[in-house]
Amino acid sequence: MDNRPIGFLDSGVGGLTVVRELMRQLPHEEIVYIGDSARAPYGPRPAEQIREYTWELVQFLVTKNVKMIVFACNTATAVAWEEVKAKLDIPVLGVILPGASSAIKASKSGKIGVLGTAMTIQSDIYREKIQALSPDTEVTSLACPKFVPLVESNNYQSSLAKKVVYETLRSLKGSVDTVVLGCTHYPLLRPIIQNVLGQDVTLIDSGAECARDISVLLNYFEINHSRTGNQPQHFFYTTASPAAFREIAENWLGKDIQVEHVTL
Amino acid sequence: MDNRPIGFLDSGVGGLTVVRELMRQLPHEEIVYIGDSARAPYGPRPAEQIREYTWELVQFLVTKNVKMIVFACNTATAVAWEEVKAKLDIPVLGVILPGASSAIKASKSGKIGVLGTAMTIQSDIYREKIQALSPDTEVTSLACPKFVPLVESNNYQSSLAKKVVYETLRSLKGSVDTVVLGCTHYPLLRPIIQNVLGQDVTLIDSGAECARDISVLLNYFEINHSRTGNQPQHFFYTTASPAAFREIAENWLGKDIQVEHVTL
Repeated sequence: MDNRPIGFLDSGVGGLTVVRELMRQLPHEEIVYIGDSARAPYGPRPAEQIREYTWELVQFLVTKNVKMIVFACNTATAVAWEEVKAKLDIPVLGVILPGASSAIKASKSGKIGVLGTAMTIQSDIYREKIQALSPDTEVTSLACPKFVPLVESNNYQSSLAKKVVYETLRSLKGSVDTVVLGCTHYPLLRPIIQNVLGQDVTLIDSGAECARDISVLLNYFEINHSRTGNQPQHFFYTTASPAAFREIAENWLGKDIQVEHVTL
Repeated sequence: MDNRPIGFLDSGVGGLTVVRELMRQLPHEEIVYIGDSARAPYGPRPAEQIREYTWELVQFLVTKNVKMIVFACNTATAVAWEEVKAKLDIPVLGVILPGASSAIKASKSGKIGVLGTAMTIQSDIYREKIQALSPDTEVTSLACPKFVPLVESNNYQSSLAKKVVYETLRSLKGSVDTVVLGCTHYPLLRPIIQNVLGQDVTLIDSGAECARDISVLLNYFEINHSRTGNQPQHFFYTTASPAAFREIAENWLGKDIQVEHVTL
């Protein structure tokens, strides 16, 4: 038993898609979330800068006495997960391996698409992990640099979003049977993405897969929160505007939350 | 990537229920299995003896260069899992926490039954783990000392099995909505158990739950086997008769296997 919170980090609001799934699966766990919206998107930045920012988020979470850290950000996972995991003495979970291995299980044709930020796609980490597990799988990777700004600006249900998603993804249509949403922001665009790619394409939500893994690791390391009758206390922090963060978060999570501004 | 095999230990053939589920979920992983049928059942033995036997099984698996050890035996998990996990430098997974946490998720009434060997029930470990996670849950534990001998003697589909299961479980009927099969031998009796308890009772197969956890831990520790086109090589060892082991194993796994006798 360990009643300390689980720490989540993301470049902005995308990690909330992991949080929503965690709240559904493990409603008694407490959460500390830090979103670096002031410096989002991370995708186009150089790796060294992403590494530096990620360490700042990690150090912030460590000061909050978390029992586990979840990299709810594919870009940060691609650049810094292995390094951070090796250095901390608490479990550190990334979103890429859970998504990669679920995609392999889901694909019947052996043709998988991966959507991600410029950095995630440039790192080629999904292809590397998928083909290490399953060498015969074909991976088609597609950078979607316009998706995160749509979500961060709360325009993810707009007609602009439909246009951008259609133009970005039309080349992929028909060539794969499974697509990894390799950025935690993308599940907010899921209905539009599904519509463009067609109902017969399986979308893998790297964040939702990750929530299941959190549950298993809490068991393995014996650090579950006990299920008392108390309401869990969650803490959300953003490096940008708390009001903007709260608007997206409350809409996505379907509950009222408190958000504080923080300077890293 | 780590192409070494996963090691499984059990007091006998019960752990094959975990192996079957693993082969289904991760068909490219290789398995080394040791079943201590010569000294089964472990359930009625004193804890110190079970600890000693378990360490012998662990040491045997270590000589086979396994990358992970799965305690596919609730009795060994109850007695020695935490100790072995702390001492080895490879991941060691037990069957109890995956089963306990799945049972909590499955139960709507908050009334859970646990079936196990004399030692597992006497250790009270399922009640302890379930109530640590969920203090308000009521746990009714029932030792089923006649079940393992039915399975080890390959009589698990006999009319004797039906009679024994009915007499053992009838007191439990109607008082719980979820029942943990807290011994990896019991899934072989599953159709009979389900029939006695009624179709509306959810049976939790601790071994099947454990197979899912193996997959997550392989990802977390980055020790998956690559999915090459090669057929995986499995090795089964028993301390008793290879012929008797093979008969049950081939029936349960639905494939031909090689079994060797080993003296510990």
